[in-house]
Amino acid sequence: MKKLINSPENVVLESISGLGAAFPDLVKVHFNPNYIVRADAPVQGKVGIVSGGGSGHEPMHGGFVGKGMLDAACPGAVFTSPTPDQMHEATKAVNGGKGVLHIVKNYTGDVMNFEMAADLARAEGAEVEAVVIDDDVAVKDSLYTAGRRGVGTTVLAEKIVGAAAEQGCTLKEAAALCHKVNAQGRSMGMALTSCVVPHVGKPTFDLPEDEMEIGIGIHGEPGRQRMKLKSADEITEMLLTPILEDLPFQNGDNVLLFVNSMGGTPGVELFIVYRKAHEILTNRGIKVSRSFVGPYITSLEMAGASITLLKLDDQLTKLWDEPVHTPALRWGV
Amino acid sequence: MKKLINSPENVVLESISGLGAAFPDLVKVHFNPNYIVRADAPVQGKVGIVSGGGSGHEPMHGGFVGKGMLDAACPGAVFTSPTPDQMHEATKAVNGGKGVLHIVKNYTGDVMNFEMAADLARAEGAEVEAVVIDDDVAVKDSLYTAGRRGVGTTVLAEKIVGAAAEQGCTLKEAAALCHKVNAQGRSMGMALTSCVVPHVGKPTFDLPEDEMEIGIGIHGEPGRQRMKLKSADEITEMLLTPILEDLPFQNGDNVLLFVNSMGGTPGVELFIVYRKAHEILTNRGIKVSRSFVGPYITSLEMAGASITLLKLDDQLTKLWDEPVHTPALRWGV
Repeated sequence: MKKLINSPENVVLESISGLGAAFPDLVKVHFNPNYIVRADAPVQGKVGIVSGGGSGHEPMHGGFVGKGMLDAACPGAVFTSPTPDQMHEATKAVNGGKGVLHIVKNYTGDVMNFEMAADLARAEGAEVEAVVIDDDVAVKDSLYTAGRRGVGTTVLAEKIVGAAAEQGCTLKEAAALCHKVNAQGRSMGMALTSCVVPHVGKPTFDLPEDEMEIGIGIHGEPGRQRMKLKSADEITEMLLTPILEDLPFQNGDNVLLFVNSMGGTPGVELFIVYRKAHEILTNRGIKVSRSFVGPYITSLEMAGASITLLKLDDQLTKLWDEPVHTPALRWGV
Repeated sequence: MKKLINSPENVVLESISGLGAAFPDLVKVHFNPNYIVRADAPVQGKVGIVSGGGSGHEPMHGGFVGKGMLDAACPGAVFTSPTPDQMHEATKAVNGGKGVLHIVKNYTGDVMNFEMAADLARAEGAEVEAVVIDDDVAVKDSLYTAGRRGVGTTVLAEKIVGAAAEQGCTLKEAAALCHKVNAQGRSMGMALTSCVVPHVGKPTFDLPEDEMEIGIGIHGEPGRQRMKLKSADEITEMLLTPILEDLPFQNGDNVLLFVNSMGGTPGVELFIVYRKAHEILTNRGIKVSRSFVGPYITSLEMAGASITLLKLDDQLTKLWDEPVHTPALRWGV
């Protein structure tokens, strides 16, 4: 295992320490239980937005804590759900009196633990809502999931709902908006290689030198199909077609096209995928009005890419464009 | 070779096509010769800033074209210098009457071709200056370089000089500022793995499973030493110590600490390196007043990291903070 780490046990602790040291004006890192919180939390009179999940998907979620996005993120061990006490403490830390929304990726452990945390917080009088993101069209039910897995749309939901919270929406409005983003977003990913979880020390799965896996999950969960490696254009078509079939995007629709690196895929390749995806959409009369390209929801160093398509309307477009100031995403400030 | 490409010959062409399709409001892509130019070029009354080099280091340089940074970037084939006609055409395309600065990484081919392009442009009456970046403390003279190689400081110079140009500085001032950034910046990198150049199809070098290379170049040029893999903290110390010894940073200095991924190293590891670098600097009484962490000058999918330290003063800090709006870097707008 070749990694820039000191020991597998300390990966998350040291990494979030580094994040806190790098951006002290944006985030504070709390240890035992571990969570990353906006430096100015709790923001009075604002709905708090909390997410979290296993580590190894950076910059999601800790890199998205800050003005206009998340109020707190709860990092679990690598590819392992955070615990209810992390979520409970984070929820308390960001409650500015207007309630807290949990944005939860659909993995059984995450969903269960966020539910327990919400119950604990409600028992203390806090208003808490939760929205589960389940946008991955690859498979129904998976290794850690009943129903569809939550993937790339999570990043877009955190940005868009975070902007609405910053503008002063209510908890009910934030939850409704998050449901809307989830309903209008679809994703699918693929892998060329596995990654190595530090405390495991060997690849999560073996993939022969001439094969790829289509529909892979962000923890290396099995996808739809293993097959011989194909060209970038063919792969792009294999990812985008099920997305387009699942949500009937129509001629004239505006979309946000998000091409994501699984971690180990360089920028030069991502834009080759982007190019073909843009061409397919344009040929169908779908207008790409916003683009987002880079490593935003990763699986450590896995080589591969995912595509997320979000159907936009004026509300979502305006909220996407609103200022954001986090370690990983910053514009308008 | 596992890559998201269609054919090795078309990697650069298709990738820059994708970049142009993704950000049409920011950049235009010109083909034959290939260059990426600000959508609003030439900006009248502004010094034009042009850079370029081999592809495979994305987002550098094409991802840095836009308001507040580069006016144009010339992408060569992967790890291959662009040609003088690319640079010449890009120079003409961005000359708004106030002259053009070439920011050139110190590789023999890049330097020679930018000199030829400058001569061609000058013969047509354009004012052109060039500044060579040579910030890599690892080795004196290298595979493609006489003197030190140009690496991470290039990104910082493009941002800082780009901001000054946006504010209306003269060509002489832009060149002097670029020299200053180069004089105050130092870098060193290391690799855990090689990368695979698409048209070569096999790893640039072999590195056994338990070894790393300290002082590596961004094209895989030999570094200072191959040795057994060490911990992230030890590696960070081995990168930072030569940097600190080379430029006598002093107690009380302010620095920008840039921890860069070579491409295949995930964020969770980068922040472990950042944490230790921050600790070493703090213990020496050096204040990290700006931080920059991510894959900004890469070597395709190479696993590894580099550290760049830039000594800051008020002028450089203010220019770093100025708005930028490019595909890969955006803030303040």
